[in-house]
Amino acid sequence: MKQLSAAKSFDGVQYVFQHASDACKCDMTFAVYVPPQAASGPVPALWYLSGLTCTHQNVMDKGEYRRMAAELGLAVVCPDVSPRGDDVPDEKDNWRFGKGAGFYLDATQQPYATHYNMRRYLLDELPAALKETGLALDLTRQSITGHSMGGHGALTLALTNPGRFRSVSAFAPIVQPSTADWSRPAFEKYLGKDEAAWRRHDATLLIADGARLPELLVDQGTADPFLHDGLRPWLLHEACKKAGIALTLNMREGYDHSYLFISTFMDDHLRWHAERLA
Amino acid sequence: MKQLSAAKSFDGVQYVFQHASDACKCDMTFAVYVPPQAASGPVPALWYLSGLTCTHQNVMDKGEYRRMAAELGLAVVCPDVSPRGDDVPDEKDNWRFGKGAGFYLDATQQPYATHYNMRRYLLDELPAALKETGLALDLTRQSITGHSMGGHGALTLALTNPGRFRSVSAFAPIVQPSTADWSRPAFEKYLGKDEAAWRRHDATLLIADGARLPELLVDQGTADPFLHDGLRPWLLHEACKKAGIALTLNMREGYDHSYLFISTFMDDHLRWHAERLA
Repeated sequence: MKQLSAAKSFDGVQYVFQHASDACKCDMTFAVYVPPQAASGPVPALWYLSGLTCTHQNVMDKGEYRRMAAELGLAVVCPDVSPRGDDVPDEKDNWRFGKGAGFYLDATQQPYATHYNMRRYLLDELPAALKETGLALDLTRQSITGHSMGGHGALTLALTNPGRFRSVSAFAPIVQPSTADWSRPAFEKYLGKDEAAWRRHDATLLIADGARLPELLVDQGTADPFLHDGLRPWLLHEACKKAGIALTLNMREGYDHSYLFISTFMDDHLRWHAERLA
Repeated sequence: MKQLSAAKSFDGVQYVFQHASDACKCDMTFAVYVPPQAASGPVPALWYLSGLTCTHQNVMDKGEYRRMAAELGLAVVCPDVSPRGDDVPDEKDNWRFGKGAGFYLDATQQPYATHYNMRRYLLDELPAALKETGLALDLTRQSITGHSMGGHGALTLALTNPGRFRSVSAFAPIVQPSTADWSRPAFEKYLGKDEAAWRRHDATLLIADGARLPELLVDQGTADPFLHDGLRPWLLHEACKKAGIALTLNMREGYDHSYLFISTFMDDHLRWHAERLA
């Protein structure tokens, strides 16, 4: 476990760590913001999963989460989105696949299955790595959120691990990746042609197959260029309605897909999670 | 005047524009955040001048100013820090000189005097460019702030243009560039060897020479690696004390020189300026 940086911010500390991952067979980097309340005892943690093309750094720079996290006493854990390094198979000119596009699943197809195991990395290895940091985190109190591909990750990880996360939210999530043109090719390469194997990595299909969450918060911009093809929050709305899942879906007039949208509604999501982590 | 981007954020709009500059003999880019209050009438503007190596983009990504600017009804104008383009003389491996290091002065020495005229650009051209955008800005109500080299810029521009800015503040400013090792070489190349010509671009020497401001707000981190060599806020404290300028100098325990420091205290500075622009 190597501490790459630590800097005071909003009276807490923004850390970045690097460690060897067995699941991803490479070094992985993650960011953790620890609020000032950690000085007097372990604090709950919110996981933020990032979108396509991102690393841990994007939300650290542009997410504007520290002020409110410091007020609420929440740690914020920001992992990378895929394995990294020269050994990791990639498609250099394709931002929707490979490095920067791990889709929070465990690949079953070679040459991807060796490295692309972000699901296992996040569920098993990163919690252990967080303990190893020695930071005052209470990992019995965790929640999860994410953006776009990371919203997909937050929803699917929570739906397939009942009780693990006290609350779940997302910003502009990919709600049905197995039918969206921009994610189908990645699913095929990571998981194979048999679409039955895709269902456990698809929030709306997981719900159709019986997975449940007590409630969900989603914010989505109406001026998001990916709204109609990639994201389609109405599919989640329909799935939740049928399943009796209390979905709060806020359609935000005029907002796009960028961090200028995310940062605007970050405080609302932090408050939602903090109430449920109290 | 070309609008490069516009995106809704905190109910206002974050714009980026590009325009031809006569002072800098190149195209210049700047960002403007317009708060929601502009829909019902012109709003006052705070200028934020960035530090070495930055463009308009750094504070736009990492400054966390939009939430509070939207609450207070303040526009925030973020210019670039130097001329740009292949024609502009530069020292590629020197981050303290040339592109990214304009020092907010008008160069008198060639080959720099043709392009490096950031002072003239900011005082004359950018206000005209802002009018040309058609945005609802009340340019009779302006204030100025900045970080590091940009703190130097804010202080010197305000000290040499009494009454132009209603209030002035800075984050970790270079208060005496003419004696700091990291800025002396730049001053010599831009302004020549005669140090008498440097004084009007040096906040503490301007004050010693009689320039006055009613008051000043400065925040400075105690863990800033440039504190003792480049920044030295105590020189400003001494100059202000002698001159009877009301300086509020907040030494912030444990904070560094990065945007993790700036963003922490951004709200305080926005409130300070908003009170004086009301």
